[in-house]
Amino acid sequence: MKKLQIAIIGASGYTGAELIRILLNHKKVEISALVANSNAGQKIEQLYPHLIRYNLPDLKKIEEVDFSKIDVVFGCLPHTTSQETFKKLLADEKNSHLKILDLSADFRLENPDDYQKWYDHEHIAQNLQPQAVYGLTEIHRNKIKKSNLIACPGCYPTSALLPLIPLLENNLISKDNIIIDSKSGTSGAGRSVKQGNLFCEVNESVKAYSIGKHRHIGEIEQELGKASKAKIEINFTPHLLPINRGIISTIYADINPQFSIEDVKNCLNTKYEDEAFVQIIEGEPNIKDVVGTNFCLITARKGRTPNKLILVSVIDNLCKGASGQAVQNMNIICGFDEVEGLELAPLFP
Amino acid sequence: MKKLQIAIIGASGYTGAELIRILLNHKKVEISALVANSNAGQKIEQLYPHLIRYNLPDLKKIEEVDFSKIDVVFGCLPHTTSQETFKKLLADEKNSHLKILDLSADFRLENPDDYQKWYDHEHIAQNLQPQAVYGLTEIHRNKIKKSNLIACPGCYPTSALLPLIPLLENNLISKDNIIIDSKSGTSGAGRSVKQGNLFCEVNESVKAYSIGKHRHIGEIEQELGKASKAKIEINFTPHLLPINRGIISTIYADINPQFSIEDVKNCLNTKYEDEAFVQIIEGEPNIKDVVGTNFCLITARKGRTPNKLILVSVIDNLCKGASGQAVQNMNIICGFDEVEGLELAPLFP
Amino acid sequence: MKKLQIAIIGASGYTGAELIRILLNHKKVEISALVANSNAGQKIEQLYPHLIRYNLPDLKKIEEVDFSKIDVVFGCLPHTTSQETFKKLLADEKNSHLKILDLSADFRLENPDDYQKWYDHEHIAQNLQPQAVYGLTEIHRNKIKKSNLIACPGCYPTSALLPLIPLLENNLISKDNIIIDSKSGTSGAGRSVKQGNLFCEVNESVKAYSIGKHRHIGEIEQELGKASKAKIEINFTPHLLPINRGIISTIYADINPQFSIEDVKNCLNTKYEDEAFVQIIEGEPNIKDVVGTNFCLITARKGRTPNKLILVSVIDNLCKGASGQAVQNMNIICGFDEVEGLELAPLFP
Amino acid sequence: MKKLQIAIIGASGYTGAELIRILLNHKKVEISALVANSNAGQKIEQLYPHLIRYNLPDLKKIEEVDFSKIDVVFGCLPHTTSQETFKKLLADEKNSHLKILDLSADFRLENPDDYQKWYDHEHIAQNLQPQAVYGLTEIHRNKIKKSNLIACPGCYPTSALLPLIPLLENNLISKDNIIIDSKSGTSGAGRSVKQGNLFCEVNESVKAYSIGKHRHIGEIEQELGKASKAKIEINFTPHLLPINRGIISTIYADINPQFSIEDVKNCLNTKYEDEAFVQIIEGEPNIKDVVGTNFCLITARKGRTPNKLILVSVIDNLCKGASGQAVQNMNIICGFDEVEGLELAPLFP
Repeated sequence: MKKLQIAIIGASGYTGAELIRILLNHKKVEISALVANSNAGQKIEQLYPHLIRYNLPDLKKIEEVDFSKIDVVFGCLPHTTSQETFKKLLADEKNSHLKILDLSADFRLENPDDYQKWYDHEHIAQNLQPQAVYGLTEIHRNKIKKSNLIACPGCYPTSALLPLIPLLENNLISKDNIIIDSKSGTSGAGRSVKQGNLFCEVNESVKAYSIGKHRHIGEIEQELGKASKAKIEINFTPHLLPINRGIISTIYADINPQFSIEDVKNCLNTKYEDEAFVQIIEGEPNIKDVVGTNFCLITARKGRTPNKLILVSVIDNLCKGASGQAVQNMNIICGFDEVEGLELAPLFP
Repeated sequence: MKKLQIAIIGASGYTGAELIRILLNHKKVEISALVANSNAGQKIEQLYPHLIRYNLPDLKKIEEVDFSKIDVVFGCLPHTTSQETFKKLLADEKNSHLKILDLSADFRLENPDDYQKWYDHEHIAQNLQPQAVYGLTEIHRNKIKKSNLIACPGCYPTSALLPLIPLLENNLISKDNIIIDSKSGTSGAGRSVKQGNLFCEVNESVKAYSIGKHRHIGEIEQELGKASKAKIEINFTPHLLPINRGIISTIYADINPQFSIEDVKNCLNTKYEDEAFVQIIEGEPNIKDVVGTNFCLITARKGRTPNKLILVSVIDNLCKGASGQAVQNMNIICGFDEVEGLELAPLFP
Repeated sequence: MKKLQIAIIGASGYTGAELIRILLNHKKVEISALVANSNAGQKIEQLYPHLIRYNLPDLKKIEEVDFSKIDVVFGCLPHTTSQETFKKLLADEKNSHLKILDLSADFRLENPDDYQKWYDHEHIAQNLQPQAVYGLTEIHRNKIKKSNLIACPGCYPTSALLPLIPLLENNLISKDNIIIDSKSGTSGAGRSVKQGNLFCEVNESVKAYSIGKHRHIGEIEQELGKASKAKIEINFTPHLLPINRGIISTIYADINPQFSIEDVKNCLNTKYEDEAFVQIIEGEPNIKDVVGTNFCLITARKGRTPNKLILVSVIDNLCKGASGQAVQNMNIICGFDEVEGLELAPLFP
Repeated sequence: MKKLQIAIIGASGYTGAELIRILLNHKKVEISALVANSNAGQKIEQLYPHLIRYNLPDLKKIEEVDFSKIDVVFGCLPHTTSQETFKKLLADEKNSHLKILDLSADFRLENPDDYQKWYDHEHIAQNLQPQAVYGLTEIHRNKIKKSNLIACPGCYPTSALLPLIPLLENNLISKDNIIIDSKSGTSGAGRSVKQGNLFCEVNESVKAYSIGKHRHIGEIEQELGKASKAKIEINFTPHLLPINRGIISTIYADINPQFSIEDVKNCLNTKYEDEAFVQIIEGEPNIKDVVGTNFCLITARKGRTPNKLILVSVIDNLCKGASGQAVQNMNIICGFDEVEGLELAPLFP
């Protein structure tokens, strides 16, 4: 069978490199175009020497790509740039066959006003937004199947939504007083060159940032709101960790009075027992247990005060939190086995 | 003036080594005995090569120490061992002159039943407990001054209590629904040789542990209870970080309806404005900003939901969270300048 | 086709876990026995939670394994234990069908006196030693093909021998004055619980150890001696790095007068141009470029003084330096494609 | 006694911050001007939040400083900028009273042609060069005493020269075939914002760089040449380590035939026995043993081949390798106790 042809737009960042890592291991697709406007003309191994052995295509400008030969496009662009790029690309009818997996934030918020509010920028592809599906695979698999424009979730939201949504859908926890305390590896900040991301600034330290106002709150509240069929506001605090990859989210919520911690565990187990990439565990999840994989491990524990629930989830921010989930969604919309290319065991230690 | 003579009992652990680091920089005291029963006879530089240049006394068994020549004793022993040791030491009237700074958990809990409950072991020095003062310096300075037995606080409690106590004392926040999400460097686990503390197990990972039931909850609730004049139960989740030193605690509480975030900041600023080691800052505290020092930096921010308060504090777990605060307390009970030996600037980067 | 059945003896260590990671990705084999005497009866995920999702067999004692159903045995035991184990196993004629890949040092030294000298222990399986082939794949592939007992090389030797052997074989460099300055990640020390391997002892530090007398010198000199057809003595200094995985070896040698750096590069390129796992690069190799893979990257540079050659090589110590090379050898002796199971791209970042 | 008044020019980099850390602990001086042209007008804590508690002067442009009130100037500028700055500053006779400690490379090379060669830039302050003394304190203390312009050595050279110079001066080792394999923490790269210094690029990796041609070779060869009274060429390979601070240099040299390893140790011990900051140790030096201090620890070991010497030295690159040695030199030229401000114990762990 002919392999599907892939283009990665924005291939110079970490999520682009991670897509390449995963897709090199995928039997049904072939990477045929790597777009990185400001590095066009270079070989990918000039940016990423670890990719020297893979005969990958040279980096191009987007206008050099013949999209008639492309089946699937991954967008790894910064927000707003992504909207511009896909608006322009899809304005051309010849490109209507493309399946698009966008890893930016640009199509995640269903309401353009929310986009304006959280990203401080007018939504400039409002015609496309209604076609987009929020690509949290385990939650929206059926809608994803039917869509050609998947807005892949942010890394923090993925780690928080997977444990919370089933509990809200089943009314096991209160929609009020949800607190999400997340800690992320530094690759979440991308490869952009900022003083705050220098080795000596990050190493041997941890800090909280964007306290009470991080942009990912928008998509978390949107999805929790849909799950609970009510407006939800949450408290979310991200922290920067001195590790390359991984997120651990510690989530505090109130179990509704008629339910117990066992009900919570049963609900999560029922929801995820047939899932390839989500598992409820009894032990304490460790970021290391998922590095390099598309897994999400979740534990649910009784807190100390009555009815308090403590959920802990771990993911690899670049994989399940970005490129891995994007490939998982590609597998669904292309009719492949959902786990194809994603069955890598964790790298331990 | 003759320098006071110091004995460190349990000198082989990290808090012992940190005491040595600090006391070498202290002008009014001299380290005259290092006790480490299982390493007795060795030189300290056999355990800690970085201490090779300091002419420190050789390690001894406790029975080899002539306590009549000692003024101040620091206890760096495991819990229960500490109770046994000081019970025996103080049973001898000749030792009644000793000023004791205990860094273990053994004298922190005022109620022996609480000790039994959290440490799963009967309190075996109940006669001494009433003399002990909980050594959170900025809160109990006046009581500390008059005591010869200081139970120095745990590292997690120090980071959580300093921001919370003034707010509870002034009734600015609700005593219900306090959540403390703490993250600690690995030196908090001590130098004991366990698989979970191996480099390859800790590096590039973070995990939550003792979820909902960590022993430090006992002293946190005791002190918050005293501050609020009511029984308090809190939720506390510790996490293990791949860094040597430092704790960051992210704390969620509900501001009482009549108060604002400005009231919270004013309360904290008022409480700590004259303190040498606690500072309320506007920015986001970073563990790195306090490494090697006795400082605690605190920020107070409005959460996203109404009345939600997010406090973030950072300390060096081995310094303000252990040996530094012990020296601060020694300075008080010995009538020294409170900052003597503790004015070291942070090591950055 | 029926998959070959694998037993891993000594499955509780890091090289055992790494074998599992690799073999889970191998299409022609199945892990049917995991032996770990002191953990027998446990599930592998009790030792390695990251392996929870793989339906692996429970840990057994070696006497519980039915070796008549096993095709290939990987030995991940400490030295001397490995000799005892395989001596006993192969003493039973029923086990003569087994193909054995030993990752210990026990069969690497052809001369039992060398074993005695470097390991301070009599060689106790001298009858087996003549059957053993030193499993540096790219160098001894033809002999490996015909053997059932492969002594897989140490991690440091692999990194040093791959660049040096072709140059000595072709008389491009002097056999005198070879200096190998190697730096290894901490997983090379295994999962054994020692104070020196604690996170706080290793992190933020580097030290040299076993200066001038590390046991790997034995096998390095043996193999260099064979390549140069003369007795060789080298200087080798290993260093411990605060990273999980990876070795970088910086090697200094003297180019023989009639040759140039270009001759050196040509020699290495010629030797390795058809190899799947060794590549000569122009840039400066970075440990990160090979983490998680079976690759060895090598650069050759002219030093500052006349005729001085500086070689730099990087490998993943657990993969090409241990379990990966063992699987590569298994592929050869079992007639599989040499790269099967080993085509994983590096994990970057 | 009135404290000497200090200006730090180029205060925004890591060596500037380290100078501040050290000088805050110095009883005889006061920091009265911090110059950082591009950040003029800011408070130092805007660049370095860890310095919030010290009432330091605001950052200024150099032309805003009244140098008539300054006694000592530390230069923490990039090379060439430093030459320009001091040329201009000292062109004004009113500034002739200034004692200058330059941490850049600009005055280290006595021969302007060497400067041109290694820094690819004409020496633009050739009139000043003859006044400059190479500030390797233990070697050039007497010359330093009489100079007002100290060219403080580079970090790599400090770690290499301290062990080698006494051996060459006493003709114990051959001047040929010296190999210096050095590994440095990332703070050596400064706070400049480059992709290669990002956390995710450095963490979990090590690379060699500038193989055979690093600029520090110039000053190493100059100083070794003076010690041996002959032209010397060496091989030097620097490596980048994923740690904040510290250098370990592993040095290979040939002991001259008539001498032994004991002669080497005796020579080094004799040279350094009265030094406060250099110590010859029997054990294996660990970077951690000197972090935060002005110490250099050195061990000398016999290699495996006849007459081969292996020296290992460790320093803190920001302290003895930069700012600490600068303060040590200041103490000398100002007539202070040489250890003033520098008696800090290492931060361990």
